Amino acid sequence: MVASALRVFEVIGVLAFAASGLIEAARKKFDIFGVVLIAFIAAFGGGTLRDILLDRRPFFWVENQELLWLVIAFAVLAPLFFRARHIEFTSRAMEWPDAVGLGLFATSGAQLALDAGASPFIAAVMAVVTTVFGGILRDVLVNEIPRAVNDHQPYAVLAFAGAWMLWGLQSLGLDVVASIAITATAIILVRFATIYFKWKLPAWRL
Amino acid sequence: MVASALRVFEVIGVLAFAASGLIEAARKKFDIFGVVLIAFIAAFGGGTLRDILLDRRPFFWVENQELLWLVIAFAVLAPLFFRARHIEFTSRAMEWPDAVGLGLFATSGAQLALDAGASPFIAAVMAVVTTVFGGILRDVLVNEIPRAVNDHQPYAVLAFAGAWMLWGLQSLGLDVVASIAITATAIILVRFATIYFKWKLPAWRL
Amino acid sequence: MVASALRVFEVIGVLAFAASGLIEAARKKFDIFGVVLIAFIAAFGGGTLRDILLDRRPFFWVENQELLWLVIAFAVLAPLFFRARHIEFTSRAMEWPDAVGLGLFATSGAQLALDAGASPFIAAVMAVVTTVFGGILRDVLVNEIPRAVNDHQPYAVLAFAGAWMLWGLQSLGLDVVASIAITATAIILVRFATIYFKWKLPAWRL
Repeated sequence: MVASALRVFEVIGVLAFAASGLIEAARKKFDIFGVVLIAFIAAFGGGTLRDILLDRRPFFWVENQELLWLVIAFAVLAPLFFRARHIEFTSRAMEWPDAVGLGLFATSGAQLALDAGASPFIAAVMAVVTTVFGGILRDVLVNEIPRAVNDHQPYAVLAFAGAWMLWGLQSLGLDVVASIAITATAIILVRFATIYFKWKLPAWRL
Repeated sequence: MVASALRVFEVIGVLAFAASGLIEAARKKFDIFGVVLIAFIAAFGGGTLRDILLDRRPFFWVENQELLWLVIAFAVLAPLFFRARHIEFTSRAMEWPDAVGLGLFATSGAQLALDAGASPFIAAVMAVVTTVFGGILRDVLVNEIPRAVNDHQPYAVLAFAGAWMLWGLQSLGLDVVASIAITATAIILVRFATIYFKWKLPAWRL
Repeated sequence: MVASALRVFEVIGVLAFAASGLIEAARKKFDIFGVVLIAFIAAFGGGTLRDILLDRRPFFWVENQELLWLVIAFAVLAPLFFRARHIEFTSRAMEWPDAVGLGLFATSGAQLALDAGASPFIAAVMAVVTTVFGGILRDVLVNEIPRAVNDHQPYAVLAFAGAWMLWGLQSLGLDVVASIAITATAIILVRFATIYFKWKLPAWRL
């Protein structure tokens, strides 16, 4: 029950991250290979870098190859689907499923690091890597300054704080499943609030 | 005999990939270090990323350090050689040896993945990584949108299809050497046809 | 005594590399997360790539997490400090501490490779990776052509030559500590001279 709910959310998160790649690639008029590549990198880049840093093998997308097929199918079918339904397939509309991806991947990234014996600080770094680097690689490939460093929205900060929360809850004796559920939910809700109320990070000046 | 022929082709492929880096770096008026770096990354970037993803050590360029010296010598001597011979050293002229590199590195990348126990799909992903990421890193470093995602030419698609062909031939009972030779030849010939007939990939629209 | 002196120099090097990231990020008006990220990547990117290539775990910043905190504190406090003291916090002013980072990280990168059984040539490649790739990743993320390939200053070349010098001194029977001290000092002094006399690398033309 819990496992299959998590599975559904994971698929939502992967598709949301992939969708951000599709939107970018479509805007730049890439060919079909370019579209699939950017969608792959947006969806799997962060988790792959995390796995390299934690020295985890096989990669999560090698263990779950159906996710790769899903992203290919999504890239090929998305235009038909969204046109037929008259759904706006824009960056703004994608922010909501993307928030689900943020919460899930931040929490799972932090948990994988803690399981590997990392300190909470390293776990927080891994949560940021998992959630942010797919988007950073996507933006680098389409030759733009990564939105993650430039849009003044709280995003990576939530992944960072969430990892500390996860560690704190487990230090207080909460079991792993409950602490993951609470942390992921908290990140998603705060991110929803961030989008809805348009909260901003302060600028930084030298 | 077969081994030394393969060796010659491998050198052709590495030099063709390196040459694409030289041309880019020269166009941007980089200094000599920049030229060597971009040539290295174009020639070795894709295979290195493949080795990291497959967790293979030592890297192929650590095992074959003469390839590194070859690229350095090529970068330093290319201007003299090409000027003396009045050979056009352009992206277009380089497409033919590059096709040889595509066929060889796609096939060897897929075979290394299959040897490591990967599924044919993962082998196909590794064939794409091996052949495409050197060029992608090269273009990212010179601050342009990677040609691989943007030029609407069948290239990565051939590596992807070739890996499935390699796996198929071996599933049919063909031995490794014969299946590698047939696959590499097929990729090179189709790529030659692609260049000659100017085949295009369809655009993708949202 | 020697160890604590090295420690101080290492901190100077990390802060100099981080400072180059801060300056870039401030120029581009990034938000606070972006500033910290770019500072991290400038300071730790080269060493992390070296550790991945040498298959070393844990990473040096996992073993020395106080360096991570130091960079975060530096990013947050730098504006206050530099404004209060009226110190010019510019790329030019940062070249001097950066030269210290170059000498130290080139030497330590080469030594780590030699310790892992690498040839002097691979050690020289690792010295270049350690010293140059943080800055390259920093420049790629802020969407500019990496200065390292484009500024016609001897920089990576010094790391490359220094690694051969380190290996030569040890081949001559010098002990590790002395050869490291001599090599790092030589690199730093030549780099100082490079900055002071504005030495240039020749351009490269096809």
